[in-house]
Amino acid sequence: MKKELKKVVQNELNPNVSVDCVIFGFDLERLTVLLIDRGGNTKNIGPRLALPGNLIYNNENIDQAANRVLEELTGLKDIYLEQVGAFGDPNRICKDADREWLQSIRAEPEARVITVAYYTLVKMPDYAPQASSFAKTIGWASVNQINELAFDHFEILQAAKEKLKQKIKIQPIGFNLLPEKFTLSQLHRLYESILEKPLDKRNFRRKIQKLEIITSLKEKQRGVPHKPSQLFEFNEVRYQELTQNGFDNFGF
Amino acid sequence: MKKELKKVVQNELNPNVSVDCVIFGFDLERLTVLLIDRGGNTKNIGPRLALPGNLIYNNENIDQAANRVLEELTGLKDIYLEQVGAFGDPNRICKDADREWLQSIRAEPEARVITVAYYTLVKMPDYAPQASSFAKTIGWASVNQINELAFDHFEILQAAKEKLKQKIKIQPIGFNLLPEKFTLSQLHRLYESILEKPLDKRNFRRKIQKLEIITSLKEKQRGVPHKPSQLFEFNEVRYQELTQNGFDNFGF
Repeated sequence: MKKELKKVVQNELNPNVSVDCVIFGFDLERLTVLLIDRGGNTKNIGPRLALPGNLIYNNENIDQAANRVLEELTGLKDIYLEQVGAFGDPNRICKDADREWLQSIRAEPEARVITVAYYTLVKMPDYAPQASSFAKTIGWASVNQINELAFDHFEILQAAKEKLKQKIKIQPIGFNLLPEKFTLSQLHRLYESILEKPLDKRNFRRKIQKLEIITSLKEKQRGVPHKPSQLFEFNEVRYQELTQNGFDNFGF
Repeated sequence: MKKELKKVVQNELNPNVSVDCVIFGFDLERLTVLLIDRGGNTKNIGPRLALPGNLIYNNENIDQAANRVLEELTGLKDIYLEQVGAFGDPNRICKDADREWLQSIRAEPEARVITVAYYTLVKMPDYAPQASSFAKTIGWASVNQINELAFDHFEILQAAKEKLKQKIKIQPIGFNLLPEKFTLSQLHRLYESILEKPLDKRNFRRKIQKLEIITSLKEKQRGVPHKPSQLFEFNEVRYQELTQNGFDNFGF
């Protein structure tokens, strides 16, 4: 008797825990994030926009839930995923517009929901995002142009940005955001966007080339209105060597 | 009607979300962690030992819950606190010994519980830990001697250790673990314990002194069986200067 577990119904939603995903992209100029527009009558668009997310199922763990939500939305599997943390202000879902929306999509809209946030990095041209069943539209927005979101999603976005900033200093994860072949200028701009500060171009190039984590290709850009630049690719083998030797300072 | 919120009863426990605290200390030789012994009949002591934690209240946010649990246990307020992340395997509380214990202390022992883990750093001689109401005893254990804990607490401990390791590379947070006055050898040993690798003593000293984040005191160790060493203290002002100028590489 003592050991009997509460029966878990397959695909029963857990009303108390959700996941929300900060999906970062890079349009070769600015850091971007995927947002859903849930519609509604608010004057400004800010409170209508939300991070994609959903309640977890009772028979899955939180990482599985995040992967599921991401796959449902983007069709992509096994993409780079990092937990940002748990967000659980008792009033996080209590704004009027947020409650109205929850009442239209959730079975227990009054339940207190703790959300676990993740961030992921995708190559923007890899796929066209699909709107999920509860979103009117979905699209990319420039991270720095956002100053309001639904629920506590603005706070989550800031926390995710900060985690990404810290992470890129110890691991060259930015390559997940770039096309397979990229120019040094694009890589430089990516680091500037994530670190949110200007980086001296020559120092940056010297450091990145000294690390040998990128390989020069026998190929240049095509169809650009300026002098075509040399293309590079990420050197995964060299990166693995470095990290196995304990190197973890990829910051600038 | 629509906007009416579910009444939150003061101090009503939320059966679905808990916090667990990894309280790190440093005995001047090894990294230590505070564990509670919940008692019981298991053959090995491992599964009897757990991280201190508890369910959150419905009217507090998760950070507040972690601070409350820490204060109840240690009497200390406003101590260094970092979220490790959320842990939510559906089977995380399903081991026999764990379920028996929960049945003895919880109103809804069958409920699925997601836990949010935090780590904190304390100066060991600052206080004598008090056993909480549900713990038989409480005490410090050397982190590296632990290979089993209750629930998923071993996994949480490993994740916290990893977060601490990453963090100390960008912020000199280790000072929270040392006495106000310390020797260079103690500081060196602290970094070795957290980074889990030997560090060349001369390089370490050179780097830490070049950063100027420690100040030499006009004072030496007393009552030691060897030649007394010079004492130092952490230079908070210099550290703030450095970080305001964007410096964040305190790694070795």
